[in-house]
Amino acid sequence: MAPTTPKLVVPIDLTKKPWEQKVPLHNRYHPDIPPVADVTEGEVFRVEMVDCRGGAVGDNDTALDLNATDLFAVHYLSGPIRVLDKEGMPAKPGDLLAVEICNLGPLPGSEWGYTASHDREHGGSFLTDHFPDATKAIWYFEGIYAYSPQIPGVRFPGLLHPGVIGTAPSMELLNIWNDRERELVENGHKSMTLTEALHQRPFALLPTPESCFLGKIEEGTPEWERIAREGARTVPGRENGGNCDIKNLSTGSKIYLPVFVDGANLSTGDMHFSQGDGEVSFCGAIEINGFLELKCEIIRNGMGEYLTPMGPTPLHVSPIFEIGPIEPRFSEWLVFEGISVDESGRQHYLDASIAFKRAVLNAIDYISKFGYSKEQVYLLLSACPCEARISGIVDAPNACVTLAVPTAIFDQDIRPKAGVGPRVMRKPDVMKCPYNGKFPMTKNTSASTSS
Amino acid sequence: MAPTTPKLVVPIDLTKKPWEQKVPLHNRYHPDIPPVADVTEGEVFRVEMVDCRGGAVGDNDTALDLNATDLFAVHYLSGPIRVLDKEGMPAKPGDLLAVEICNLGPLPGSEWGYTASHDREHGGSFLTDHFPDATKAIWYFEGIYAYSPQIPGVRFPGLLHPGVIGTAPSMELLNIWNDRERELVENGHKSMTLTEALHQRPFALLPTPESCFLGKIEEGTPEWERIAREGARTVPGRENGGNCDIKNLSTGSKIYLPVFVDGANLSTGDMHFSQGDGEVSFCGAIEINGFLELKCEIIRNGMGEYLTPMGPTPLHVSPIFEIGPIEPRFSEWLVFEGISVDESGRQHYLDASIAFKRAVLNAIDYISKFGYSKEQVYLLLSACPCEARISGIVDAPNACVTLAVPTAIFDQDIRPKAGVGPRVMRKPDVMKCPYNGKFPMTKNTSASTSS
Amino acid sequence: MAPTTPKLVVPIDLTKKPWEQKVPLHNRYHPDIPPVADVTEGEVFRVEMVDCRGGAVGDNDTALDLNATDLFAVHYLSGPIRVLDKEGMPAKPGDLLAVEICNLGPLPGSEWGYTASHDREHGGSFLTDHFPDATKAIWYFEGIYAYSPQIPGVRFPGLLHPGVIGTAPSMELLNIWNDRERELVENGHKSMTLTEALHQRPFALLPTPESCFLGKIEEGTPEWERIAREGARTVPGRENGGNCDIKNLSTGSKIYLPVFVDGANLSTGDMHFSQGDGEVSFCGAIEINGFLELKCEIIRNGMGEYLTPMGPTPLHVSPIFEIGPIEPRFSEWLVFEGISVDESGRQHYLDASIAFKRAVLNAIDYISKFGYSKEQVYLLLSACPCEARISGIVDAPNACVTLAVPTAIFDQDIRPKAGVGPRVMRKPDVMKCPYNGKFPMTKNTSASTSS
Amino acid sequence: MAPTTPKLVVPIDLTKKPWEQKVPLHNRYHPDIPPVADVTEGEVFRVEMVDCRGGAVGDNDTALDLNATDLFAVHYLSGPIRVLDKEGMPAKPGDLLAVEICNLGPLPGSEWGYTASHDREHGGSFLTDHFPDATKAIWYFEGIYAYSPQIPGVRFPGLLHPGVIGTAPSMELLNIWNDRERELVENGHKSMTLTEALHQRPFALLPTPESCFLGKIEEGTPEWERIAREGARTVPGRENGGNCDIKNLSTGSKIYLPVFVDGANLSTGDMHFSQGDGEVSFCGAIEINGFLELKCEIIRNGMGEYLTPMGPTPLHVSPIFEIGPIEPRFSEWLVFEGISVDESGRQHYLDASIAFKRAVLNAIDYISKFGYSKEQVYLLLSACPCEARISGIVDAPNACVTLAVPTAIFDQDIRPKAGVGPRVMRKPDVMKCPYNGKFPMTKNTSASTSS
Repeated sequence: MAPTTPKLVVPIDLTKKPWEQKVPLHNRYHPDIPPVADVTEGEVFRVEMVDCRGGAVGDNDTALDLNATDLFAVHYLSGPIRVLDKEGMPAKPGDLLAVEICNLGPLPGSEWGYTASHDREHGGSFLTDHFPDATKAIWYFEGIYAYSPQIPGVRFPGLLHPGVIGTAPSMELLNIWNDRERELVENGHKSMTLTEALHQRPFALLPTPESCFLGKIEEGTPEWERIAREGARTVPGRENGGNCDIKNLSTGSKIYLPVFVDGANLSTGDMHFSQGDGEVSFCGAIEINGFLELKCEIIRNGMGEYLTPMGPTPLHVSPIFEIGPIEPRFSEWLVFEGISVDESGRQHYLDASIAFKRAVLNAIDYISKFGYSKEQVYLLLSACPCEARISGIVDAPNACVTLAVPTAIFDQDIRPKAGVGPRVMRKPDVMKCPYNGKFPMTKNTSASTSS
Repeated sequence: MAPTTPKLVVPIDLTKKPWEQKVPLHNRYHPDIPPVADVTEGEVFRVEMVDCRGGAVGDNDTALDLNATDLFAVHYLSGPIRVLDKEGMPAKPGDLLAVEICNLGPLPGSEWGYTASHDREHGGSFLTDHFPDATKAIWYFEGIYAYSPQIPGVRFPGLLHPGVIGTAPSMELLNIWNDRERELVENGHKSMTLTEALHQRPFALLPTPESCFLGKIEEGTPEWERIAREGARTVPGRENGGNCDIKNLSTGSKIYLPVFVDGANLSTGDMHFSQGDGEVSFCGAIEINGFLELKCEIIRNGMGEYLTPMGPTPLHVSPIFEIGPIEPRFSEWLVFEGISVDESGRQHYLDASIAFKRAVLNAIDYISKFGYSKEQVYLLLSACPCEARISGIVDAPNACVTLAVPTAIFDQDIRPKAGVGPRVMRKPDVMKCPYNGKFPMTKNTSASTSS
Repeated sequence: MAPTTPKLVVPIDLTKKPWEQKVPLHNRYHPDIPPVADVTEGEVFRVEMVDCRGGAVGDNDTALDLNATDLFAVHYLSGPIRVLDKEGMPAKPGDLLAVEICNLGPLPGSEWGYTASHDREHGGSFLTDHFPDATKAIWYFEGIYAYSPQIPGVRFPGLLHPGVIGTAPSMELLNIWNDRERELVENGHKSMTLTEALHQRPFALLPTPESCFLGKIEEGTPEWERIAREGARTVPGRENGGNCDIKNLSTGSKIYLPVFVDGANLSTGDMHFSQGDGEVSFCGAIEINGFLELKCEIIRNGMGEYLTPMGPTPLHVSPIFEIGPIEPRFSEWLVFEGISVDESGRQHYLDASIAFKRAVLNAIDYISKFGYSKEQVYLLLSACPCEARISGIVDAPNACVTLAVPTAIFDQDIRPKAGVGPRVMRKPDVMKCPYNGKFPMTKNTSASTSS
Repeated sequence: MAPTTPKLVVPIDLTKKPWEQKVPLHNRYHPDIPPVADVTEGEVFRVEMVDCRGGAVGDNDTALDLNATDLFAVHYLSGPIRVLDKEGMPAKPGDLLAVEICNLGPLPGSEWGYTASHDREHGGSFLTDHFPDATKAIWYFEGIYAYSPQIPGVRFPGLLHPGVIGTAPSMELLNIWNDRERELVENGHKSMTLTEALHQRPFALLPTPESCFLGKIEEGTPEWERIAREGARTVPGRENGGNCDIKNLSTGSKIYLPVFVDGANLSTGDMHFSQGDGEVSFCGAIEINGFLELKCEIIRNGMGEYLTPMGPTPLHVSPIFEIGPIEPRFSEWLVFEGISVDESGRQHYLDASIAFKRAVLNAIDYISKFGYSKEQVYLLLSACPCEARISGIVDAPNACVTLAVPTAIFDQDIRPKAGVGPRVMRKPDVMKCPYNGKFPMTKNTSASTSS
């Protein structure tokens, strides 16, 4: 007889707030956040999840709600889920947890999403020194296709994926995280590795009880207080996976996650309908409420067998992935290049982050010539299935990073050709909430058109 | 009637040294190096070229020749080629030169190549602090497939491309290059943006008359002396294209290069039979003697129409590319991840170069478990068609970079699975020339197996 | 604000029989079957549908239910749906109706399907003279993947598509259909174009009131009687589209259907989770209950502008399709060939049907050597995403047809290689209901192993 | 040390006639045609070949040369080549010969080809009753791209392949061929399986000494006379492979050929720069002079292990193929459909040949609306990489065959859309030699535009 419909281990009720869900969500990593469900290897189970801002950003006509979002609360994760083998024995530290994505999608009835950049006082973005405003575009879905009223003339199939998927850290690993990130916050200004503009973004987000949700742990208890003070924020990807934002983790993909605590304690959230490599505008994928259908396998002692730690402890490992067999097929790409020379003309040494910044700036400027505002293109490149490649990393002093944009997403031919006149500006524009803060903008002194 | 066979504008005689060729080669960028040939837009022409080390690395059983190569001489370029429109008017500064790659391949009779890493006193490589030795592998070709006696069990189709293709700089642009690179060499140690190990590589290679070849300019003349002192080295990619090492610039690709001097003065060289994104071992593609068949189109005023400068002058632009329709088709990829935490466990801020270093180290360690030495995998990842993606660049403090390796290139299944025992080491190994210099190695203190 | 969830125009309640649905289904083509719903061009709407046998084939352990299915009732179609433009004007005869498949899937809660062959007295199959039994395999879905307990060692991603999608015929076109098919039934034995074995299948299925369902037309009324006597059976694809069984009509595809009656009267049904080209076992796709989300556009006078009739009337046209951008990506295919020589050794003249029969027989024999029964492979090739190509049709006397099977669907390497021993038979086998009818089987006199 | 350049076993001198080559060619299959060279498994060797008409069709401005070609002489094959294992033992009957295509291309200096249809008295074509004239288009190559002055606005990358590759038959197999083809010639008119128009083409080409070339066998000797009377013509593909015209047999493909005689006696010829599935215009690929670089492996007893005979003897087998990893990547296809109703409106029974004929006619009519003559499109579809699929073969009475055409080969958007006016006719047209023979044409009575 047929297997039953996938077991729903974390349901989401969109009429309720993230902190009111029947199966409570959590927004910190800590080994002591207890599992909310058990699953057995081989069974397909369903996890639902709220979008990365927990419903605070609306399908409306303003970008004001971006400034009001609570970044201390990001991300609301579904789980932890304890994984058992067929004999009922939980995954153990040192195992490898193979998680297959059988299916995923927007939550039924919620066929829309948004792409946004925060202003610089509220988290900023990769190009915050060029695009200081909060901006927002809404995307609607027609089956697998997304289109945005604010970015006319563009339509593409989604490559859905969870932004966040990971296991729980052990206490030892959690301490490593908190120590190294605190060190960066405290001393990073002495050894900054990105341009000054990017330095204006926070170096890291340290643990804080503010807006902390810890699943089944009751707020106000001593245990809550302790975990809230220690629990790692979920913004960066780390040894446990987490917010890796890898756009190709779609249907049929398999993720091999290291196990640090009994049961693995798998959490996931931050579903994306689509994302460009880099997710440059920060809140930059097409952010949605979604569901995952997953299947787990435990590879006993797989960490030892397959992952070599790289760092001071055996916990300094990284997940491995297999990409699934179904991805949109694009045959034509226009490719933009960046080298590690910054906007002031200064030469950096094999710096792929700066080269990537340059490639994105080049792409924005180019595509904006086809009738778009630069803010439209910025959000578009953040959300569409473009590919950012480190093409060269050894030819000192220039790293060479390329950004490949599939040309089929446009309703016009965006390739360079002789004798084409100026284009009509596409209207309307993205929603904006102008920045009036204190940070300076990076000027592009030679550009004839202002951004 | 049929068009004639492509006009051969730069022939190569492999029985002669690079500096003895009938149409002289050059290894510096300078506006005053005169063209060696004219081509007209629309006509297909053929350019032959020597490998990146100009024949100094042999198909033999030693890595010693790597230490003897003259890095001052890299790269021997074919050209410059002056491009005219159908009325005989040359391309002008401000135009865009569209160059289509109609065909390319190894030089007939030279169906082999090599992949190498230099030791740290001779140029190093991306992971020079982990792999300080000079190492070398030879590749033989069976049609489109490459295999190496030194890396058994691996075979893959080539994605051939020229490592170097670019236009000549104007004097103004050349000065910009020399100024900013000199500034880095002189003051880079104050603002280093990569790990200390990488800092041990030279920051940049400044102009020098040593081993300088300037095409038709006669050595010893005052003009030669002047150009040799000013001419930019060809190692990094820059505003003019150059050594971009973009592995997808293969058959059918189109490159849009800015024109800075009359005639565009197109040069090319450094053919690769295959390369992984990043070309991590530095001399890391499958380096070959090769030929290109090209076709040019001039887009008048295309720089102004299509390229927005980003930097202090209108010359701070970058080329654009279109990828061709023919690439090997891989359906299954194993993906390795790196975050911007270095081998000592130190947290860096959104540093994609460090995240990439970590991803490559993870991939090497993983694949070496399948019967390879780490040096074998290092050269393999440098040469095979793996893809390096900047997946996340905004989730402070970690950049997330992924390296995707096509599994079909191996004669075994390299995916993690339960219950697989140890593998037999594949023999022979790559050729090595052990390092006995002064720089320290980076230790991976937690790895149980040494590299 | 977001568009509302797609309008559900035909709901299916799986607890009810096909003829008990709230919005009534129909199983004949006739211009006078009235529409059950209106849709406007540009709006996304949802159509649900029952499987091709209307629930008569169960997820159980017997093939007996195949003999009990009512082939007079095939297919239960959802619709007709009347299509209006934005001004409310219906599509007109002579227009072209562009139908985009935005989304599709199994009906929630019904994540399973079946593949079957009927025995020769109940409809037979392409190879009915070799495989006379009724056989059945059940498929279960894990997200996009299908696997069958009866065909172990195989798993593949689905390429979902509706087997049937088409517009209503005009009375004139309906008469053409009925006339030409009656002529074949009556005189086909005089000019048979397939082997004798295939001749034993019915030539065509003519109109009959038996098991006829006509949507909103009430049974027993004079109008019902008339339409039932005239209405075309839905088995073959025809000028209106219909049961084309084109496996690539999946997400993102666009179908351009000619319009023959006011409103176009679009009908659809017979959803497939996957199908091989040819659908050789007849009930041979993975047959499921499913849903479609569609969007229509009316191209006024598009028939005249884009479709040239080929035949005695302007109605002898064919639909056009565009394939969508999302298909499973397979890189390795094993290809079997067939020529137009039949099993008795007799030479036929450029007969692609016989060449295809031969290619399928060759594929079955080959793959069965890897541990399968021939019946398992027969159903597998009917259901998996294999591609049947007419490679050569001019090299008299042999047509050359090829069948390409993606090797990644197997858990073993099925390529020929030296020194591999016999395989263990995979168990269990497909369910069978042995044939004991009167038709002779085709013998393969030279095969050492019997089928 | 590097392997030497592939051994050239059959050189071609284009300044000489096919029958004047140093290593003599042959144009019949017979076991007694002696090998011209030996190769060892594992070694890469090079075979050069003349085009399918042996140089009789020129790069000129007339189609007259088509009527003058000697169809008795087709094809001039290079070989036979005897294959030995590493111990020097030849392949034996019952073995399987795996032939890998390492590389292939046009003969250097011969970068052009042609596509043609013969008139009905000289061989005809698939649509000879619609297109009775001899027509011709010339293609020129720019690297991998082909374009034709006679079919403006079209350009596509080649998917090169040998039309003919096969082993020698044993005497027993040769007799089977000759017997069954003679039976068809003599009695085929009683059981014709294609429309009357196609019946007007010759059923088969029986052995004849006319224009016979037998390699090293000296003309006029008794042995020559005997072999010439018995030797099979090379037009159709058969059990030994031969003229299969499978367009995907390109770089990296592997062909598993049954061995019938000692040494296998591999022959090849009829190189194509590109071909559409079906090769509908008969001389319909882009026909070129070319070269192959091949590598063989002998799988001992592989026929017994992998190929099940299907027919009265153990010799009734078919080759198997693996498709290579490098093919042009097209993402968008326009698909035309055909059902088994002929141009007179008559219904045929599951006849894939007629359905394919209909699909090709539909495609020609459609594409001709975009500014082409029907003859231009006929030759284009014969030569470009279009795919012909048997989509449905079981839905009696209609087979459904589809022809998918990649839209990227056109310089205009050929998809149907609202509000597009008439197109300007593209000039010049293909070269024609009008038919004034006796056969009637098939009329399309309902078409408003004539062909």
